[in-house]
Amino acid sequence: MGRRQMKNPIVTLLTDFGTKDHYVASMKGVILKINPLCKVIDITHHIHPQDIMEGAFVLANAFSYFPEGTVHLAVVDPEVGGPRDSILIVTDHFFFVGPDNGLLTLVLHQEKVKEAFKLTEKRFFLPNVSNTFHGRDLFAPVAAHLTLGISPKAFGRRIDSWKTLEFQRPLVKDGGMIGKVIHIDSFGNLVANIGEKDLDRFVGKLPFHILIGKRRIEGTQKGYWEVKRGGLLALIGSSGLLEISVNKGNAQKVLKVKKGDKVFVQNTKDD
Amino acid sequence: MGRRQMKNPIVTLLTDFGTKDHYVASMKGVILKINPLCKVIDITHHIHPQDIMEGAFVLANAFSYFPEGTVHLAVVDPEVGGPRDSILIVTDHFFFVGPDNGLLTLVLHQEKVKEAFKLTEKRFFLPNVSNTFHGRDLFAPVAAHLTLGISPKAFGRRIDSWKTLEFQRPLVKDGGMIGKVIHIDSFGNLVANIGEKDLDRFVGKLPFHILIGKRRIEGTQKGYWEVKRGGLLALIGSSGLLEISVNKGNAQKVLKVKKGDKVFVQNTKDD
Amino acid sequence: MGRRQMKNPIVTLLTDFGTKDHYVASMKGVILKINPLCKVIDITHHIHPQDIMEGAFVLANAFSYFPEGTVHLAVVDPEVGGPRDSILIVTDHFFFVGPDNGLLTLVLHQEKVKEAFKLTEKRFFLPNVSNTFHGRDLFAPVAAHLTLGISPKAFGRRIDSWKTLEFQRPLVKDGGMIGKVIHIDSFGNLVANIGEKDLDRFVGKLPFHILIGKRRIEGTQKGYWEVKRGGLLALIGSSGLLEISVNKGNAQKVLKVKKGDKVFVQNTKDD
Repeated sequence: MGRRQMKNPIVTLLTDFGTKDHYVASMKGVILKINPLCKVIDITHHIHPQDIMEGAFVLANAFSYFPEGTVHLAVVDPEVGGPRDSILIVTDHFFFVGPDNGLLTLVLHQEKVKEAFKLTEKRFFLPNVSNTFHGRDLFAPVAAHLTLGISPKAFGRRIDSWKTLEFQRPLVKDGGMIGKVIHIDSFGNLVANIGEKDLDRFVGKLPFHILIGKRRIEGTQKGYWEVKRGGLLALIGSSGLLEISVNKGNAQKVLKVKKGDKVFVQNTKDD
Repeated sequence: MGRRQMKNPIVTLLTDFGTKDHYVASMKGVILKINPLCKVIDITHHIHPQDIMEGAFVLANAFSYFPEGTVHLAVVDPEVGGPRDSILIVTDHFFFVGPDNGLLTLVLHQEKVKEAFKLTEKRFFLPNVSNTFHGRDLFAPVAAHLTLGISPKAFGRRIDSWKTLEFQRPLVKDGGMIGKVIHIDSFGNLVANIGEKDLDRFVGKLPFHILIGKRRIEGTQKGYWEVKRGGLLALIGSSGLLEISVNKGNAQKVLKVKKGDKVFVQNTKDD
Repeated sequence: MGRRQMKNPIVTLLTDFGTKDHYVASMKGVILKINPLCKVIDITHHIHPQDIMEGAFVLANAFSYFPEGTVHLAVVDPEVGGPRDSILIVTDHFFFVGPDNGLLTLVLHQEKVKEAFKLTEKRFFLPNVSNTFHGRDLFAPVAAHLTLGISPKAFGRRIDSWKTLEFQRPLVKDGGMIGKVIHIDSFGNLVANIGEKDLDRFVGKLPFHILIGKRRIEGTQKGYWEVKRGGLLALIGSSGLLEISVNKGNAQKVLKVKKGDKVFVQNTKDD
């Protein structure tokens, strides 16, 4: 168990706890009490309560930008205290700590798992583990101990499977591609489950248009500035996914679209 | 005044300043200018404006998780600039800096005061102290100087009393216990002023039920998972207080209850 | 290019990105990957989307409180990816990195520019620069490299002009001074574009009153406590500007005033 403290330890936090209560601060206190050298960085605490897939999306878009060895602690945990397991997944570049409920689904589309463990060793938890706040009582102390260089295998029993959620890819049907809005950001940009490659494969070099919320958009632009102020456009956003935006405006408000609504891509031929 | 810098200095911040303005950042700048080695950790800045008791509640639930020696800077300060005093309270484990208005009431139910001071020494303040922002001009520089190892007694005159607010305990009346909702968290969980011990003492080992917002809840559960999705339940939450929750839902929205509303606990006998 | 790492490097962030998405965390990851010793401090991420002047105001009120040498990274960037330039401005005390769109207008009323550069050196950017997220792909890595001690001139071509926005000063007309509300803080305090000196120069030692939203306020107070609870007052706030407030209340709600609404200052003579 060659224990060697991480050199510039970072723990990131992603939760649905909000920032008005004591929850997040308690977790940070617990981490700093175990390893005062840790940098604790918020990814977000504003995941909609219990929305695991939203948490998975935001985490998957942020984690890879952090230094190798970062411990990502993610807690969107509707089954807290119940029969769901607590896990640690070690990938080629990072550590992930949290409930085993699919929150890592999209991360693991990008990262290769090296080893995984069910968290069972109580000596790494707080002395009293509540049934409602494993973030503070279990996940935070495990994350902090990891940064002290405790070997992953010390935390529990090795596992070789974990829960994943279905991520619905776009469908090709009747000559069109059907996707949906999977995330709406704070600017009102509508992010679809249509990757740059999905789009390229489907439309090739032919002209195409996008249908969403009763509006039609011709092809994609390189950036917002290519349309006039208030103009509707589509582009491949910074997540590598198709996004519908309004230049200097809010596409969600303009289109009155909500998460889950359909996005159609069609080749433009006769009309 | 054996001055020795704190080794891994932490200053926490709890305010009602919100996060959209420059207020919080100015305080952080002031602290880092005095001690660049400080870690400044937010507890929250979303206390409802001027709600001292809410600040007291959140602070009391977070402070003890931080490493010994942490400086807790708490500013919910409706009387800023007026006749209220500015104080430093040193307890067995922590330092608390802020206005003398009762904000530490609930912390001091848990912590023993070692010494306390009225902040009068202007050499530890910013050169110009405004009448509306002592968080930046007075409390932040005092907190930062504390982390430099300045002795508490250097900051002002020793005092032996400070303001406390009344914290209303549950009443026992007509054979029932009457409490009230004192906090509603971002999940919509309703936290009552009824501690685990209050409850145990009142109900003993007998069956009991809870009445809140026209609904009746039979006894307490261990965790959310014990009732079905959308089910109403009561449990002892992670603060050690009685909480009313909806599994995977929002009890505040379901019960249409607000802060201050009554919570009744009654033994279940004949009905 | 005498390269010497900053000793206690600080990068501040001011954006309109909100805190519910992965945007801010990605920027922090990028910075920490380049310089793990950086402290990254949020000024705010809640600037109204694309409101450059609001960003300019909050930045101008916060930046000077940070230690000399702090890198201020500010991104409110409606023209991202388009023809607007990316710049680095070095002042007597700080570094400023961001889009060249006037976001530094109010900072540069206070700071003297030493040198300025257009950011063109791609070796300091992420390998793939998106057209929609320069905060992550361009500005964050530049800020982080600055903290490594890279010389400002390494980042691009020297420039000697940059965009500034017009900041409307109060007008004196018909014997009165006419200003406007330029910021409303989270307490509902109404900040006017009337500085302490503007006011002194205009009213001298004579009595005056303020007209705003159909209400009249006699002169200024030293602090909130000088009027009764719920009372309307004016004072010179912690930004050095005239503010309209309600003691323990919310002036915005009471007066139903919005940003841009007029504030009149008049000498009180005959009435």
